[in-house]
Amino acid sequence: MTNKPFFYHGQDPNWVTVRDNNNSEQQLHLTLVSEADTLISTIFVRCDPDNEEELIEMTRGETLNRLQYWHAAIPVNEDQPITHYCFKIMQNSRQWWLHGNGVSPRVPGREAHFKYNRVHQPPAWMQSQVFYQIFPDRFHNGDPSISVKTDEYCLRGNERPTIALPWGHPVSEHGQNGPNEFFGGDIKGIHDKLDYLQDLGVTALYLNPIFTAPSNHKYDTTDYRNIDPHLGTNAQFADMVADLHQRDMKIMLDAVYNHTSVDHPWFDRYGRQTEHKGAFNHPDSPYRDFYQFTGDTNDYIGWKGIDSLPKLNFSNPEVQDYIYAGDDAVIKSWLRPPYNIDGWRFDVIHMLGEGKGAKNNAHYVKAFRESAKSVNPDCFILGEHFFEATSWLHGDQEDGAMNYYGFAHPLRAFFAHQDISYHNCQIDAEVLVEWLNEARSKVPWLNQLSQLNQLDSHDTMRFLTLLDGDTDTMKLALLMLFTYVGTPCVYYGTEVALEGGQDPDNRRCFPWERTETAHPMFDYVQQLIKQRKQSKALQSGSIQWLYAEHQQLAFARSYGDEQQICIINNSQYAKTLSIPMWQIGLHNANVVDGFTRDEWEVKDGILTLTLAGKEGMLLSVRA
Amino acid sequence: MTNKPFFYHGQDPNWVTVRDNNNSEQQLHLTLVSEADTLISTIFVRCDPDNEEELIEMTRGETLNRLQYWHAAIPVNEDQPITHYCFKIMQNSRQWWLHGNGVSPRVPGREAHFKYNRVHQPPAWMQSQVFYQIFPDRFHNGDPSISVKTDEYCLRGNERPTIALPWGHPVSEHGQNGPNEFFGGDIKGIHDKLDYLQDLGVTALYLNPIFTAPSNHKYDTTDYRNIDPHLGTNAQFADMVADLHQRDMKIMLDAVYNHTSVDHPWFDRYGRQTEHKGAFNHPDSPYRDFYQFTGDTNDYIGWKGIDSLPKLNFSNPEVQDYIYAGDDAVIKSWLRPPYNIDGWRFDVIHMLGEGKGAKNNAHYVKAFRESAKSVNPDCFILGEHFFEATSWLHGDQEDGAMNYYGFAHPLRAFFAHQDISYHNCQIDAEVLVEWLNEARSKVPWLNQLSQLNQLDSHDTMRFLTLLDGDTDTMKLALLMLFTYVGTPCVYYGTEVALEGGQDPDNRRCFPWERTETAHPMFDYVQQLIKQRKQSKALQSGSIQWLYAEHQQLAFARSYGDEQQICIINNSQYAKTLSIPMWQIGLHNANVVDGFTRDEWEVKDGILTLTLAGKEGMLLSVRA
Repeated sequence: MTNKPFFYHGQDPNWVTVRDNNNSEQQLHLTLVSEADTLISTIFVRCDPDNEEELIEMTRGETLNRLQYWHAAIPVNEDQPITHYCFKIMQNSRQWWLHGNGVSPRVPGREAHFKYNRVHQPPAWMQSQVFYQIFPDRFHNGDPSISVKTDEYCLRGNERPTIALPWGHPVSEHGQNGPNEFFGGDIKGIHDKLDYLQDLGVTALYLNPIFTAPSNHKYDTTDYRNIDPHLGTNAQFADMVADLHQRDMKIMLDAVYNHTSVDHPWFDRYGRQTEHKGAFNHPDSPYRDFYQFTGDTNDYIGWKGIDSLPKLNFSNPEVQDYIYAGDDAVIKSWLRPPYNIDGWRFDVIHMLGEGKGAKNNAHYVKAFRESAKSVNPDCFILGEHFFEATSWLHGDQEDGAMNYYGFAHPLRAFFAHQDISYHNCQIDAEVLVEWLNEARSKVPWLNQLSQLNQLDSHDTMRFLTLLDGDTDTMKLALLMLFTYVGTPCVYYGTEVALEGGQDPDNRRCFPWERTETAHPMFDYVQQLIKQRKQSKALQSGSIQWLYAEHQQLAFARSYGDEQQICIINNSQYAKTLSIPMWQIGLHNANVVDGFTRDEWEVKDGILTLTLAGKEGMLLSVRA
Repeated sequence: MTNKPFFYHGQDPNWVTVRDNNNSEQQLHLTLVSEADTLISTIFVRCDPDNEEELIEMTRGETLNRLQYWHAAIPVNEDQPITHYCFKIMQNSRQWWLHGNGVSPRVPGREAHFKYNRVHQPPAWMQSQVFYQIFPDRFHNGDPSISVKTDEYCLRGNERPTIALPWGHPVSEHGQNGPNEFFGGDIKGIHDKLDYLQDLGVTALYLNPIFTAPSNHKYDTTDYRNIDPHLGTNAQFADMVADLHQRDMKIMLDAVYNHTSVDHPWFDRYGRQTEHKGAFNHPDSPYRDFYQFTGDTNDYIGWKGIDSLPKLNFSNPEVQDYIYAGDDAVIKSWLRPPYNIDGWRFDVIHMLGEGKGAKNNAHYVKAFRESAKSVNPDCFILGEHFFEATSWLHGDQEDGAMNYYGFAHPLRAFFAHQDISYHNCQIDAEVLVEWLNEARSKVPWLNQLSQLNQLDSHDTMRFLTLLDGDTDTMKLALLMLFTYVGTPCVYYGTEVALEGGQDPDNRRCFPWERTETAHPMFDYVQQLIKQRKQSKALQSGSIQWLYAEHQQLAFARSYGDEQQICIINNSQYAKTLSIPMWQIGLHNANVVDGFTRDEWEVKDGILTLTLAGKEGMLLSVRA
């Protein structure tokens, strides 16, 4: 095949605007750019207003240096929420198609068409956030008087007594005292550190579960309506949210509705309830149908077969009412005063449903969304998905997902040569870009911007540890985190180079001593956050790949007339790159390094520069 | 990247079987093959029984020449109809994934995972059919006494009087007398030619609409319950079906439920009804809500804005009852005695729904399917889609689609260098194979086998004419039609090299004089049909690509111990190919040409042979 010519279409307002036509029908006004000297007879937008292809010819517009702009308006689909479109370019005896995955010689599969969702859009505030994920027991102990004490209670009947450990003590090996050892972090501890977090620059908190639960991770809820007393009180939490909102910060909580603890009063495996009969020991319990038992036996469905986490039975209207449907459903109540949380992160949401599997999952996720949005239409709905989340991201289910598939996994493979199962995995920059594009192109643009991008979390080895402590590569990955499409989320401690292996070692205590003196990683993360917050291009701008070969890549983010260019050399050797800056409209211009303020010259559309081994740069255009 | 190593998994019973385990749970038993000397540490099957990844290790099995077999069993999903799976291969410091689109260095997008549908499966008889599409007015006049006469009636009010033309007269130019000129083909004409069709070898008929309608194409129905009197009677039709079934042949009819004619008594645009008030002229008509009018005006929604084809209003329960829901709904009645048709082809089914677009389309297509299957669970449901049909082919809507997207379009591009809009389009064999694979991999295997593959139809230029009459290339395309995955359908006249430009020229009268003496194209098609009917591998076998570069390609179809290998040289120059036959288990063996009976020798796993320009071969393994 001939080499592919250059075509580009972004999805921010420079490229797509929605306007009414004379008949008050919504139209998408679209712009595409080609290389000015490419012989093109016609460019069509392909759309399908009634599921049938329609080709609308584009008008040749202005030229700018080597670029030729093209324009057209297409109807917004009325019969379904999403309008799909792509571009068909007629060139001599052949044709090219431009779509979300790039340029192809034939019509792309529908999953790669550009998508605009008329009906369901995530809250606009999401784009400007910098999230910070906190595992509450391990962040900061603000009130030692409520900390769990050794032998204070037992988990799983009498099996696992609680253990209180001093701050900074190593966490146990996996499978030992993972869930029953406590370090005393709490709500007041978080509240006390808001100045620190604001100094770092974060704007939003995502807390691992804080509702009453016996384990330290609290994914085993026993009371959805109350903060765990060892973390604080509902009032303390409400105070903290009020303070956060005063600071123009947001908070998202972790909702574990797929299953409860065996100690939830509804289930009461160990017969501690006196008020009523729990489902486990009493086939005639009023809560028996909250779970999924086999007849009158003690056999029930646990999450992933784990018997300490019985799955709720969502086909039961009482469960529906309690969780999402009733006036006082828990999904609603925490979004209301005095708590006013800004979003929910729904744990293992893809596994929720009826029976052992996830039957009718989409129905329940839509219902969760509707419940939340009925109280606060501007709240954020995040789904946890360890793998591809596309089918939950078409608008009517989630606003965004924990972006393992479209961010963490490809970056792990590229930078750390491992996949999510800790198996060896090697990809070069071309495969990285193809993977990132595929994941993004399947969902509407605003959902792409609202994905929660993380390098690591409480469920994975810390990224720095994956890299064997290599801070140079860690900085490249952090540069991607703060410049790529999606909302960045920092797992607590990353900014002070906290290490940690697999669960539970990835939940070490925050090493506050590292904040007492200057820390190079803190400075770097603080600087990245500052760059991101100053830049509408990094928050909401379209993305344009400029280079992707071997271990090097470059991309631009653009919004309005602002342009930022991220360049990464993931090789340990120096590398000279020629970046085709003419593709973003630069002919002869200066660009400036956002960190060093060094300047570079773009000559005749090309930026030639040498990056040191493991060097990353963030350049912006100098007026 | 390193060159991709060889891995293969087919989807016929050699590679996938469904069996119950000891707990009476369904499992898929899967086989994969790799090259024996490839260093592999582990192969996993990736599946997701509750939407979450599960990796199941494969067992190293037998070796055969250069091949190493691997085996594993995975659970069949209980919570949803489709079980997705793919393979993860660990090799030294890297990994490979095998999926429906081939081999990649990273986990594939979900659309490319292999799919098994536990719940919805197309009728098994579909795989062994060879369909023949007939445009009834142009096939054969069996009863001149009922032929439409000149000026017998008018279409569209008084605008277009009928014109009777002698058999073989050129059809009008597009936009002239397309719909109102008649040649007199009818049901008896088809019935009279069943011996001819059986001699050719076809086993199933697909008729363009035969229900009462003023035009020659009959996509403008005025009576869903009766055969058009100019084509014959319901009794004549029932007789023909009985005869077809006696001959072990099948019949599929074309159902046009998206819209009716403006002359349908319900609509009665021209006020010909006396019995009741038609919807167009009477806002108080009992049929007013069968269509979609704007208030009391004469504005209504026509298909694609065409005002002669008013769209039915499927949100009206009366329309639902009449078409699919009632006991005597038309979808049901033609599947019942005395008609007993074997399948429905639903016209423009993706555009059907509520309003101008296709709102709630999936709901109605599912309802159509359920209606039909309630009468005959073994009937075939075909959807017409000019473009990608994936979303209708996940089982609960259609059994198969008119396979424009996954067959006709890529073959047009490869052989005729045109796309469906008659724009230039050039693809090489690699893109052809990638396109064919993408389309297939998105749907379950049995649906792939039940796609209706056509080179052309009443809606496209005839393929031979697209090729400017080049019969050599036509034969290559026909070879693909009869050897590729899916059920072949021949558009009437193809077997005698009937030409024809765009609609209506593609609907010329069948040139029966060409059947009076031997015709080389007839012999070729007859031979291809014979090969197909003799070969379970061609009907139902897995497909394995062996070569795809520039203008040459080769693939094997295999079932049980039968193997057929199709090799195509689409260049006009001779080309010597080395085909890696070891990938289908052949080491030293003879293969024989299905047409010439020439033999070829596979040496050390490689078949080296020279194809003449535009030569195609179908080889089978000689025991």
